[in-house]
Amino acid sequence: MLFLNKQDILKAVTMKDTIDAIDTAYKLYESQKFQMPTRMQVTDDPNTLILMPCITEDAIGTKLVTSFPNNTKHPTLHGLVILNSSETGEIKAIMDGSFITGFRTGAIGGSAIRHLSQADAKKIAIIGTGVQGFYQAIAACSQRPITDIYLFNRTYDKIPLFKENLEKQLDKSIRLHAMKTIESAIQDAEIIITATTSITPVLPNNPDLLDNKLIIGIGSFQPEMREFPEALYLKSNRIIVDSEDAVKESGDIRIPLENKWIEKSSIQTMSSYLTNKHNSTHKKGIIFKSTGMALFDVVTANLIYQKAIEKGVGNQLSY
Amino acid sequence: MLFLNKQDILKAVTMKDTIDAIDTAYKLYESQKFQMPTRMQVTDDPNTLILMPCITEDAIGTKLVTSFPNNTKHPTLHGLVILNSSETGEIKAIMDGSFITGFRTGAIGGSAIRHLSQADAKKIAIIGTGVQGFYQAIAACSQRPITDIYLFNRTYDKIPLFKENLEKQLDKSIRLHAMKTIESAIQDAEIIITATTSITPVLPNNPDLLDNKLIIGIGSFQPEMREFPEALYLKSNRIIVDSEDAVKESGDIRIPLENKWIEKSSIQTMSSYLTNKHNSTHKKGIIFKSTGMALFDVVTANLIYQKAIEKGVGNQLSY
Repeated sequence: MLFLNKQDILKAVTMKDTIDAIDTAYKLYESQKFQMPTRMQVTDDPNTLILMPCITEDAIGTKLVTSFPNNTKHPTLHGLVILNSSETGEIKAIMDGSFITGFRTGAIGGSAIRHLSQADAKKIAIIGTGVQGFYQAIAACSQRPITDIYLFNRTYDKIPLFKENLEKQLDKSIRLHAMKTIESAIQDAEIIITATTSITPVLPNNPDLLDNKLIIGIGSFQPEMREFPEALYLKSNRIIVDSEDAVKESGDIRIPLENKWIEKSSIQTMSSYLTNKHNSTHKKGIIFKSTGMALFDVVTANLIYQKAIEKGVGNQLSY
Repeated sequence: MLFLNKQDILKAVTMKDTIDAIDTAYKLYESQKFQMPTRMQVTDDPNTLILMPCITEDAIGTKLVTSFPNNTKHPTLHGLVILNSSETGEIKAIMDGSFITGFRTGAIGGSAIRHLSQADAKKIAIIGTGVQGFYQAIAACSQRPITDIYLFNRTYDKIPLFKENLEKQLDKSIRLHAMKTIESAIQDAEIIITATTSITPVLPNNPDLLDNKLIIGIGSFQPEMREFPEALYLKSNRIIVDSEDAVKESGDIRIPLENKWIEKSSIQTMSSYLTNKHNSTHKKGIIFKSTGMALFDVVTANLIYQKAIEKGVGNQLSY
């Protein structure tokens, strides 16, 4: 049984590998060859234990996450991913689930950029400078010749450390800009990525600032959460989701549907988009909304495991 | 984060410690101060992933088990127990869940012997010489001045190795007997423990061989499984279960109820029995039926964790 912490995982896989794994997961999603029941939640108010299993032909994966919203000295979320063999049930690996979540969510954004943005996109905005935003930026730069990243956060003081850490990970030619207003952050960006836990839109309700851009939302994962304003939906005629669950789970899809800003028929899954090649020419004015799913975790974890074994990375536990 | 394999766990706790933990779990069960939803099962026929979470005031525990019934070269079951802090959600420990299951199920039998058998009980029968039967024998010897253990298995050839391994763990004064018939195995036993996965009764339908004994059933954990014959119910007027789920889960309770061999009112939970002291004098002709529950796992795992920290046992993983 192999134990892999964050450093081990970073030695085993690149962001590009992980984006490839996300694309593999979309193919599996379209083929429906997997078992992924609704996540199990055990609540001891206000805390929650969440169990997210998924079985594919290649692996059995379970993500276990605790959410303690009142934590001050410790992170709110703690997670593990457990990988079992789909041949024998044996436990193959235990991995840092918090890190996998952030990294694979970056890769979900990266896959959206790979397939939905113009090939020469150079400028992106990251709204929300937390862990999620960090890996979104890394993923974007792995897919497009990015020259400028505009950073915005509700609390401006949190941007400098984020910027400093991100600069260490990126090519020195990429310019990072700490912006004081959301408008200035998104003005010149061709791709806007929102990674907040807001319950009110973080993007301005101004179509001129949103039109003809690729908008990627990865923050809103509950029905009351929203990052996108009404104006965005009136301009964009294509909405792509990472799974059908996003329609129920995210306020950024639920609220526009209820208010009839969009039709259900204008929503398409990424897996369906990727299998219909005629879609792939039109690449402006797209909204991509992700809420994640356990299928991404098991496919990613299985890739990490295979690469870790190849490279001799990790801590073999005697069992 | 502490990783504890079987050897670590055996360094951390004794069987007596674990029986104490089971008794603590019964107190919690009676107080209802825990969250324990119905287990989650994900099936990829014929294989199953089973997730069993439980939250108490002291800990959050999740047992993850894979069941691959067609395995030939590997064990059928593989398991982990993950222990999280109930204060912060942090992952405190990961433990060998297969071993914990066998050891704590031994302790469930041991607790039954502690509370339901006569103080001078000397002779026990173990029916089914698998992993479960092994720890039942260890637990019995920790609670009573056992002199003779009668072993019976459907496949006689499996007894000698079991006997040899068990002898290494027990006081040399205890005599182990490999028996060729079930009747000879139970004839003189004051306590009979069945630990098989049979779907037909393994005990003979002969009241003379069953009367006035403590009968402990730990094998039948599904509605179609049974170890006990009709004659047992007609003689015994007291049936004690380790949780109310046993009534639904075990054929050894379901079938007698459906056939009206017993009344539902004659079934009592162990936790209720232990809180009603007037019960404790009558100690003959009792059936104890266990199907287990996640509460036992989380209480046991938390004790193991605390003892392991005290004794400096286990593998600290950098996370």
